[in-house]
Amino acid sequence: MTPPKTAGTNANPQPATRSSGTATLAEIAREAGVSAPTVSKVLNGRADVAPATRTRVEELLRAYGYRRRRAEATRSPLIDLVFHELESSWAMEVIRGVENVACDEGLSVVLSQSAGRLTPGRTWADQVAARRPHGVILVLSGLDESQRALLTSRSIPFVVLDPAGDPGDDVPSIGATNWHGGLAATRHLIELGHTRIGAISGPTRMMCSRARLDGYRAALETAGLPADPQLIGSGDFHHEAGYRIGLDLLRRPDRPTAVFAGNDLQALGVYEAARELGLRIPEDLSVVGFDDLPVAHWVGPPLTTVRQPLMEMAEAAARLVLDLGRSSSATVATRVELATSLVVRSSTGAPPA
Amino acid sequence: MTPPKTAGTNANPQPATRSSGTATLAEIAREAGVSAPTVSKVLNGRADVAPATRTRVEELLRAYGYRRRRAEATRSPLIDLVFHELESSWAMEVIRGVENVACDEGLSVVLSQSAGRLTPGRTWADQVAARRPHGVILVLSGLDESQRALLTSRSIPFVVLDPAGDPGDDVPSIGATNWHGGLAATRHLIELGHTRIGAISGPTRMMCSRARLDGYRAALETAGLPADPQLIGSGDFHHEAGYRIGLDLLRRPDRPTAVFAGNDLQALGVYEAARELGLRIPEDLSVVGFDDLPVAHWVGPPLTTVRQPLMEMAEAAARLVLDLGRSSSATVATRVELATSLVVRSSTGAPPA
Repeated sequence: MTPPKTAGTNANPQPATRSSGTATLAEIAREAGVSAPTVSKVLNGRADVAPATRTRVEELLRAYGYRRRRAEATRSPLIDLVFHELESSWAMEVIRGVENVACDEGLSVVLSQSAGRLTPGRTWADQVAARRPHGVILVLSGLDESQRALLTSRSIPFVVLDPAGDPGDDVPSIGATNWHGGLAATRHLIELGHTRIGAISGPTRMMCSRARLDGYRAALETAGLPADPQLIGSGDFHHEAGYRIGLDLLRRPDRPTAVFAGNDLQALGVYEAARELGLRIPEDLSVVGFDDLPVAHWVGPPLTTVRQPLMEMAEAAARLVLDLGRSSSATVATRVELATSLVVRSSTGAPPA
Repeated sequence: MTPPKTAGTNANPQPATRSSGTATLAEIAREAGVSAPTVSKVLNGRADVAPATRTRVEELLRAYGYRRRRAEATRSPLIDLVFHELESSWAMEVIRGVENVACDEGLSVVLSQSAGRLTPGRTWADQVAARRPHGVILVLSGLDESQRALLTSRSIPFVVLDPAGDPGDDVPSIGATNWHGGLAATRHLIELGHTRIGAISGPTRMMCSRARLDGYRAALETAGLPADPQLIGSGDFHHEAGYRIGLDLLRRPDRPTAVFAGNDLQALGVYEAARELGLRIPEDLSVVGFDDLPVAHWVGPPLTTVRQPLMEMAEAAARLVLDLGRSSSATVATRVELATSLVVRSSTGAPPA
């Protein structure tokens, strides 16, 4: 067995050149100078291993591309669902989708949040290793390299739902056609006769908000309308940002007659800004959201929005991660985008004369 | 060891008269005519036990009031959270509260729903026995006798949050002061000058909706106003019910000038009914909700409502269930009600002249 580079914790081991998954647990143990049961303890996330030993074993597992065999036999009937933050009814739609599939498969869902960090903490990864779920679904939350290596060595498959950043070509992910949704929302406003259309994007580090904004720009360009950078604000997908940026846009002397709000919560913030300024929707201002949360048809007036099939996306992610665990993979699609669709309600109309 | 009655699956074993928890696993095994490891398998929810054997062992565990000892050592770092249904942002507030406590304690949350049934299915109970969580929190969802016995014999503590029915004096539960909330909401409307006040309750089988409606009636009675049964409708806590019953109430020739809507979602349904009939809020109609979900301050006009501290209640439930697992219990309070409070926004005003 050719020893890979494992000089220390700062070493960046070369990707194993031998075909992945060929090192045995006994070989890893011999290489690390520990017993096979100790390697097994590390794989099972047990606490009773010295930190230095654990680090050495993890490095070797990673360097040799070790993959646990017969993982299916030892799996718990669980799916892990990890959120970046548990805030809106957005999250509830996703939970329901994963629950639906889990329920069909006799599995339970373990819920956690990465608490505002974009990757879940190390403790979380250890807990996952210890409980050995059928798979992990990450929502707007990425894994760092060592966490990926940890899941891979335990043969725990994972899928990213609506990734915040570019998850990399080799990471299976489920998204929605965000670009096309932004295009459809803005075209709808242009067809109604609007020419000054504002936009409030989500966080620019999230690919989904970039894609929606690019769709907005594409609709303007293909209609021969200028995209005025003064009419574009950058929010964080929360109500408060929609309200604040909405006020800024609507107080301008040359205020827009329509706003593509980036998501439903920001659209409700724009509603509040319009109320405060005495602007009627849709007579004085048209507003389009994104997501189609349940609240979109409860508000007054009911919100025109781009429907993102969140529950179906979550179901697709759950099915994909279970498929990955069953097949010897490689044949499973790594990126699926489910279609968005424009839902026209009462918050959009012709611009004021 | 005195054998209790265990004539068959239809037998209703007498409650054990000997002090609970004194039978050993070996005694149960001898009584059942099986080996101790078989009893252990049943306790651990393992699938490889014949159904008839499992039933006989469960009956004996229950009849002798067996309680697993040293359960702490074998617990998984999990809390089970069971919903009646995963529908509204109501559920999200509860999830966040339990997540907060779980995160502090290094535990993960397993989420399940009883899918419209009021008690979770048998499979669920087996899964819980197999995964050995630190405790179980049931939301608007009760356990039947055999499920209670199953958790008790495994020494898995449980707490009911905002129980749908009377959970029984010996079941630890966390609620809110629903009666007082209904009283405060209705008194607020009376103080504004309303005398014809409608009410939309939740399902009558839920104690929380009965309590809210009784608070409404108490406010009317103590103010010397009649409670007109024609102005009281019974919903299901969803938007649609608020809309439908709202339309019925508001189409009456002697329509109410104010509605206590039972919860926020039903209040938004009343908003929609009022819009449809061209009634302005609060000029023509005052509306009060219950819960104070995030959406209550996003709608137009922002909703006056009774704040139920859902997240704090969920935190209290999580702490209580962990305390129950640590202490030898008996000293822990079995029913706690957290205070509700009226939040006055813009949906209430004086009645039309």
